[in-house]
Amino acid sequence: MENQAYQNFVEYVQKITDLNYATALLHWDKEVNLPEQSVASRSRQLATLTGLVHQMFTSSKMEDLLGELESGLKDLSEDQMINFRLVKKDYLRAVRFDEAFVMRRTNAISKAYHDWIAARQANDFKLFQAALEDLIQIKREEAHILGFEEHPYDALLDEFEPGYSSAQLDRLFTDVRNQLVDFAGAIREQQQVDDSFLYQAYPEDTQWKFSLELLDKLGYNFKKGRQDKSPHPFTINFGPDDVRVTTIIDPNNFANMCWSCIHELGHALYEQGLPITQYGMPLGRAISLGIHESQSRLYENNLGRSMAFCKGFYPMIEQYFPEQLKGVDEQAFFKGINKVIPSPIRIESDELHYHFHIMIRYEIEKALIEDSLQVKDIPEIWNNKYKSYLGLDIQDDNTGCLQDIHWSHGSIGYFPTYSLGSFYAAQFYAQAEKEIDGLEDKVASGETSLLLKWLRNQIHEHGQRYTADELCQKITGESLNFSYFMDYAKKKYTLIYS
Amino acid sequence: MENQAYQNFVEYVQKITDLNYATALLHWDKEVNLPEQSVASRSRQLATLTGLVHQMFTSSKMEDLLGELESGLKDLSEDQMINFRLVKKDYLRAVRFDEAFVMRRTNAISKAYHDWIAARQANDFKLFQAALEDLIQIKREEAHILGFEEHPYDALLDEFEPGYSSAQLDRLFTDVRNQLVDFAGAIREQQQVDDSFLYQAYPEDTQWKFSLELLDKLGYNFKKGRQDKSPHPFTINFGPDDVRVTTIIDPNNFANMCWSCIHELGHALYEQGLPITQYGMPLGRAISLGIHESQSRLYENNLGRSMAFCKGFYPMIEQYFPEQLKGVDEQAFFKGINKVIPSPIRIESDELHYHFHIMIRYEIEKALIEDSLQVKDIPEIWNNKYKSYLGLDIQDDNTGCLQDIHWSHGSIGYFPTYSLGSFYAAQFYAQAEKEIDGLEDKVASGETSLLLKWLRNQIHEHGQRYTADELCQKITGESLNFSYFMDYAKKKYTLIYS
Repeated sequence: MENQAYQNFVEYVQKITDLNYATALLHWDKEVNLPEQSVASRSRQLATLTGLVHQMFTSSKMEDLLGELESGLKDLSEDQMINFRLVKKDYLRAVRFDEAFVMRRTNAISKAYHDWIAARQANDFKLFQAALEDLIQIKREEAHILGFEEHPYDALLDEFEPGYSSAQLDRLFTDVRNQLVDFAGAIREQQQVDDSFLYQAYPEDTQWKFSLELLDKLGYNFKKGRQDKSPHPFTINFGPDDVRVTTIIDPNNFANMCWSCIHELGHALYEQGLPITQYGMPLGRAISLGIHESQSRLYENNLGRSMAFCKGFYPMIEQYFPEQLKGVDEQAFFKGINKVIPSPIRIESDELHYHFHIMIRYEIEKALIEDSLQVKDIPEIWNNKYKSYLGLDIQDDNTGCLQDIHWSHGSIGYFPTYSLGSFYAAQFYAQAEKEIDGLEDKVASGETSLLLKWLRNQIHEHGQRYTADELCQKITGESLNFSYFMDYAKKKYTLIYS
Repeated sequence: MENQAYQNFVEYVQKITDLNYATALLHWDKEVNLPEQSVASRSRQLATLTGLVHQMFTSSKMEDLLGELESGLKDLSEDQMINFRLVKKDYLRAVRFDEAFVMRRTNAISKAYHDWIAARQANDFKLFQAALEDLIQIKREEAHILGFEEHPYDALLDEFEPGYSSAQLDRLFTDVRNQLVDFAGAIREQQQVDDSFLYQAYPEDTQWKFSLELLDKLGYNFKKGRQDKSPHPFTINFGPDDVRVTTIIDPNNFANMCWSCIHELGHALYEQGLPITQYGMPLGRAISLGIHESQSRLYENNLGRSMAFCKGFYPMIEQYFPEQLKGVDEQAFFKGINKVIPSPIRIESDELHYHFHIMIRYEIEKALIEDSLQVKDIPEIWNNKYKSYLGLDIQDDNTGCLQDIHWSHGSIGYFPTYSLGSFYAAQFYAQAEKEIDGLEDKVASGETSLLLKWLRNQIHEHGQRYTADELCQKITGESLNFSYFMDYAKKKYTLIYS
């Protein structure tokens, strides 16, 4: 029996999805194609479509459709129930904010972004301070409008990592502090590895061709996607049958292109693996930023920086760049691409120090939201924490607290999902190694399709059927556990730094 | 004094415009970038956005905004009045059709397109016949719903060429029949010119680089546009500050790329010249398809196939293709690019026989709409007319009445605008030659900016301030007059075929 109320609901949600994907295309095109003097028109088009999406999603029509379903819940199948429940959750979140608040927030973000650009140009946090103060104030209000049980930060985190709490993050980062700080510190004492071969002339078009073959070999479906160039690599989709990645090529740096390419691939494989029959519905969407990031990190690091990967793919890399890699063997390559050295810049960080960047962001964000830290004190506390966790002296605001666009976009609660992604990735990969017979040997022979099949089966095809925690338990038998990451790190870096 | 009612009206129309431009981007991306298995999602996204645009444009909100303005017309400036009047005209046209009719038409078009593809594959008009019969029936109804004074065809023509009538087209094509048929026939008797140098190996990337330099030299602003490749060349815009062209490159045919490139340039210069202050409003939009085509044809033919153009630009062409053009001088080049030879295919036609293709389409369309011709008789009448006007025997339906997608899209009344464009172009160019001191010499020295300035001033910057006829009178002192085209043709082809 067809459920008409459910059909109407799906039809409407999918129309909003169409509009969302059109908005995404406007974004993609802005990053990839936009002529330099077309920004004004594009900005207003983006604003209009974003507004329309919000309007349709919070309309009385949406309320009616949800109400109709509510009055006949027993007629819904299990899958339909999931879609109903999760759309309703988003709906209730969206309608909490009245128009005046949304407008205030939009203006505050727009000002913050503008001032952040100016502050970056002047290398002076003070120029960003007032706008960030306004924005933090609004984010505090937002947390209270949304409501929370323990900590206002939880309400904000929920936008990016539904179901996760600051209490859990506190425990996680206590583990990081207790286990990773010393471990990374010990590595810093060891003799450094050589990675200079990665930073030579690597011709742009050869890198481009290599990236296409690599994506293809690792399972990216070019019939349902494409790669282009953009100033910052990203993955975006307009449906599971159109998932696009971008890359940026530095002609003097092979590593940058290669592992950002594998990183985006991980995101893209997740999106390409979502069921198209659930187009636009929660069962056809990714679970959370943390789980999304787990897929990119798993490919980039657990797979892509493993010795097995070097065995399986270094021959291909050498074929593209025989001159540059003359005299570099698999072992040296493996060591070079895993060099550990603290950087003040998050996106240039190695796999270990990376999490200190996130921990510092989290500590500061949480303190700001609970009002135990004032915006004006950010630079000082930032620099102190970098000294203490990474042993680094921060020279200026641009290499310090002015890096990264996220805060200027009003994204508070976003950064932690990067670390969650790495930790989920380690836990998932450990499980994959247990469950997939001879995974390491397969990878060492250049064959990763079994891994992809396993991820499709375990994660991709379920959309939002499970929460992140349910998924983690289903796959690994336990909730997120930092020790998998430490095991992975110890095993790998002991090979490299003994 | 700011007129709040007018501001509200503009704001709403511009929001619809944003949505329209987003739809246009979905189209552009479909032709330029779409992965091969992403068609299903893109189709539904296009349908949703097109539906939303229609819904917003025919909404009670639109009615209210127009009503508000109506009740205070005396407060409107002259420009505001033009925008009000023309949007209202479009609105009244759009709301004439009830939902049932729109759905019937959409389905009929969708079936016709599907059947046309199948008929093309089978090279058999009969497979298209039933769907076209339905569609013609619907177009007849459409004409009656819209209303007309003299002929139902006028109602359909009005969508593409507002203000023009079938009575005027009848007179125009009588001129074509009386003057051009014999003239083209006489040329066919002359000794043929050699154009074989155009059909050699012209490497694709050299053609691409050439096309970019050519566009730039002819005034295309790459800061507000870009060129890409697509199966069929077209021009599209997402505001006057983002006007994009596409081209297709045949590595064994220089002419195809070169003059389709100049053709699209003409369209693009018009769009780039529209005032951005009137974003989305009639004063910021092109007048009609005929006037649009006048700009592309003027560049392609009146300018781009002139002896002066050869003098000014052949040196550059030779620089790109010295091998291919060895031994070909400007004079020979000029003759080759103006070769007259009848083709059964419209888009492969020369400048003269082209109009017979259009005339035949028009005669058949008009007869279909007035019900004096049955769809099943199209192939026979088609082939007879091609014999009589072009002296050609049509071999099959694919090179006959199944060419061109327009009818399958339900576009009846579209074809005549191609001829109107050529005839307007000849009349405008004759006037430009009178008004611009030494235009021919300028062009012969590779300088076309004075022409562009004149077109901007005379046409582009006015948007829809004038109707096509008013514009023509304003510029040339008279309404459209076919004799300018004949003068142009006689002058040029006498040089070539004596």
